[in-house]
Amino acid sequence: MRIVATMLILCATAIAQAQTPAPKPTLADVLKASQPSDWRPLDPARTLYLDLPAGRVVIELHPKIAPNHVANILSLAKEGWFDGTAVIRSHDNYVAQWGDPTEKKAVKTAKRKLEGEFTTPVGKDFAFDKLPDADGYAPEVGFSSSFPVGRDAKAGTAWLAHCYGAVGVGRGNETNSGDGTSLYAVTGHAPRHLDRNITVVGRVVQGMPLLSSLPRGTGNLGFYEKPEQQVPIKSVRIAADVPAAERISLEVLRTDTATFTKAVEALRNRGGDWFKVPAGYIELCNVQVPVRVVAK
Amino acid sequence: MRIVATMLILCATAIAQAQTPAPKPTLADVLKASQPSDWRPLDPARTLYLDLPAGRVVIELHPKIAPNHVANILSLAKEGWFDGTAVIRSHDNYVAQWGDPTEKKAVKTAKRKLEGEFTTPVGKDFAFDKLPDADGYAPEVGFSSSFPVGRDAKAGTAWLAHCYGAVGVGRGNETNSGDGTSLYAVTGHAPRHLDRNITVVGRVVQGMPLLSSLPRGTGNLGFYEKPEQQVPIKSVRIAADVPAAERISLEVLRTDTATFTKAVEALRNRGGDWFKVPAGYIELCNVQVPVRVVAK
Repeated sequence: MRIVATMLILCATAIAQAQTPAPKPTLADVLKASQPSDWRPLDPARTLYLDLPAGRVVIELHPKIAPNHVANILSLAKEGWFDGTAVIRSHDNYVAQWGDPTEKKAVKTAKRKLEGEFTTPVGKDFAFDKLPDADGYAPEVGFSSSFPVGRDAKAGTAWLAHCYGAVGVGRGNETNSGDGTSLYAVTGHAPRHLDRNITVVGRVVQGMPLLSSLPRGTGNLGFYEKPEQQVPIKSVRIAADVPAAERISLEVLRTDTATFTKAVEALRNRGGDWFKVPAGYIELCNVQVPVRVVAK
Repeated sequence: MRIVATMLILCATAIAQAQTPAPKPTLADVLKASQPSDWRPLDPARTLYLDLPAGRVVIELHPKIAPNHVANILSLAKEGWFDGTAVIRSHDNYVAQWGDPTEKKAVKTAKRKLEGEFTTPVGKDFAFDKLPDADGYAPEVGFSSSFPVGRDAKAGTAWLAHCYGAVGVGRGNETNSGDGTSLYAVTGHAPRHLDRNITVVGRVVQGMPLLSSLPRGTGNLGFYEKPEQQVPIKSVRIAADVPAAERISLEVLRTDTATFTKAVEALRNRGGDWFKVPAGYIELCNVQVPVRVVAK
């Protein structure tokens, strides 16, 4: 009888476990289980420190997209061109933008007026971690070096998507009217209609609230009407040029790993006790690629 | 010879005009050409004035969606329950949330703990202005009384989408743990994964910067850690209960008109001199239904 009873208990347990699906992991679960190799440090050679009176905004520039503009922005930072410029615009549900309010500041070594790099030619070797979920603004979307991107495989081009925190190059009507002297960051709902219409070079990886909580400008398009409303920029420096002791040690989750695939699934179908209806879908800009501070 | 010359000039002109497509209208063009009947006033009986020290946030509640929660929030406003509560949370790229920091304030006539209205049963008579563009978070999307909505025709349900400015009912893990005493507004990229997981009752139609530019809370999930960081709420009143001279006269663009269809197309394929590549697609939350102030 004891053997039969034991077997019945074992069977009942097995049935109960089979009927109770394993709990869906949350993003926090996935990140907790991640390995060091799932993360990569920022590349200091293409990381900018935008220092405002209230603190530091850290911006990472893409290694392959919009190379001429990335190079020019690094040039501008190296010659200290941004120092003493200002945040000139804060447009609700759109962008914060910074640049030279006088529009007269001379550039020393960097170039003026680059031909737009609204898309960048890429080949089959382009690091593209596809997101299978459909997207209305691009033939394909995914991630490249942890940045959200759109890709047109037929045209052989890719571009950074205008997700929250995306950093782009302000321009006028002419396609060659931008050069990096005026940059913006997306501070509202992702304006994906801007994709392929303007050069996007990177994204904010830390310090976003310093831009997103700025008072909104009262002028047209959110420009600050009075000089005293503009937020002065102390400096923009390349992290590699900053003494190591002053740098911030940040890591970004890599997007070419099994861990990242699990992270995306944890966002596509959310676990935990709070969610009741899984979406079964994740939109590109709803994947906020995690960044973490590394203890020194 | 003169007749031939004239005919040649006329032909050349006709050919030139045939080859130059009519310029695409911008949203501004469409709104400029709109008729008074393309707009509707806010319904003061379901419009809330959330008065903060820095100014007024105007919230419109939907006439049909989440009726029990809308009624309860109107009850709470009528009994002055919100007066002296506060904005308790400002979470970057997510929400601002307000409620009673003490969590002890008694409710007089309104109800506590309503069963969630994460979706609302709707029939064929539900005012639904479909947006033909595909959406990953709902079987169909569109507009209802100028609010962005998702609809599941098979299930016979609809819900307000979590676009920027959407106002929803804070809850805990249990589906009946919300009642309107804590509300939130979306202040970042639209968290559409929240759709059908929480009761959404309306949207901010004016004053959004008063919420979106609030300093971010330093506590977990953006909660303000210190009481002095919370933003006091002077009052929340129903517009209909406010003397006419104190009301703000606002109109919203109707979403069931030919003008609205033109407005959406002007966003789907943007006109003007700045855009170079039309998207050919518009995402639900990228349609910001216009609101305008009416001169008294």
